[in-house]
Amino acid sequence: MNFSSKKLEHLVESFSALPGIGKKSALRVALHILEHNTKAEKIAQSISEIPSIKTCKHCFNLSDTDVCSICNTFSRKNDIICVVEGIRDVMAIEDTKQFNGKYHVLGGTISPLDGIGPSDLNIDALYERVKNNDVKEIIMAVSPTVEGETTIFYISKKLKSLDVKITIIARGVSFGGELEYADELTLGRSIMSRLPYFSKEELA
Amino acid sequence: MNFSSKKLEHLVESFSALPGIGKKSALRVALHILEHNTKAEKIAQSISEIPSIKTCKHCFNLSDTDVCSICNTFSRKNDIICVVEGIRDVMAIEDTKQFNGKYHVLGGTISPLDGIGPSDLNIDALYERVKNNDVKEIIMAVSPTVEGETTIFYISKKLKSLDVKITIIARGVSFGGELEYADELTLGRSIMSRLPYFSKEELA
Repeated sequence: MNFSSKKLEHLVESFSALPGIGKKSALRVALHILEHNTKAEKIAQSISEIPSIKTCKHCFNLSDTDVCSICNTFSRKNDIICVVEGIRDVMAIEDTKQFNGKYHVLGGTISPLDGIGPSDLNIDALYERVKNNDVKEIIMAVSPTVEGETTIFYISKKLKSLDVKITIIARGVSFGGELEYADELTLGRSIMSRLPYFSKEELA
Repeated sequence: MNFSSKKLEHLVESFSALPGIGKKSALRVALHILEHNTKAEKIAQSISEIPSIKTCKHCFNLSDTDVCSICNTFSRKNDIICVVEGIRDVMAIEDTKQFNGKYHVLGGTISPLDGIGPSDLNIDALYERVKNNDVKEIIMAVSPTVEGETTIFYISKKLKSLDVKITIIARGVSFGGELEYADELTLGRSIMSRLPYFSKEELA
């Protein structure tokens, strides 16, 4: 592309560096915000707020405060924790309106090929949280992939010594698929018909 | 979507207000730039430069200076002007490397249904430019749509009294299509095999 304006080129480059936005889309976006100043200002404004976005100290969900709005909702059950990979999964499950407990965001799955081990995830914090609170059930709502299964297995091993029931969401979610792209109905049903994971005897 | 962070919600909203970016893509982009701070800074930086982007006083192309880099290139011919709808068309034609004259950006096409009349476009400026300079040819590189044809007709009428040849790009570009999405080869050939438009007698 030939740009007559370096500044326009910078604008297009900064947008085309984003996932899912190619050169032509970036140019379209750039010219659009050139014509719509308020949109550009809104983006700049919301970007300037990024450094003040925190992670909840309990569940590691993104939050504007130290404790997120979900952990701060007193009508939600404290004794049931839904363990997910990322905050997009929290949003997907919240959209189903089938879960009224708290969450725990792992920040990914155990993936040796990508150099992600258990210590890179919020697993120790989950252990402490279950140990120090009266948690009765952990729902593993992790994508049914090889890495997800490994993560579920590792966590269930780790929490074996604690008095907590570990369940997994029903595999209505298609195998090998990504959790965040499942439709609401499937995802909601899979939470309702969750099944016990390994028995403690099997894990011994 | 349920957001645990209002700031994240603002970020997603500001991106989903852009053309071609839906809610899910906006969330993906937002979470991506949360993890890649430099990209967010680059966007904010390039947005802050927007107010200083100008339009070239000769051709109305976007430019960092009063006169754009194309108008400022002395090796380009001054006596042939390619009239286009928008700056994306300038970039598309520049990419073909088949044109070595100057441009004139109209800023759209005459479209009564959208309330765009000749006075909303840079047509008077084109008239003055042709009148006051030794322009020998005007290439109308406007999309072959109803609005484009109307615009070509209006301009050729308007420039009738001046001693200038008016040509249109060959209709290798598929009829009813948008100029900016044509491939380089088709667009380049259509410039090379341009044809005279109306004769002055026909316009009388």
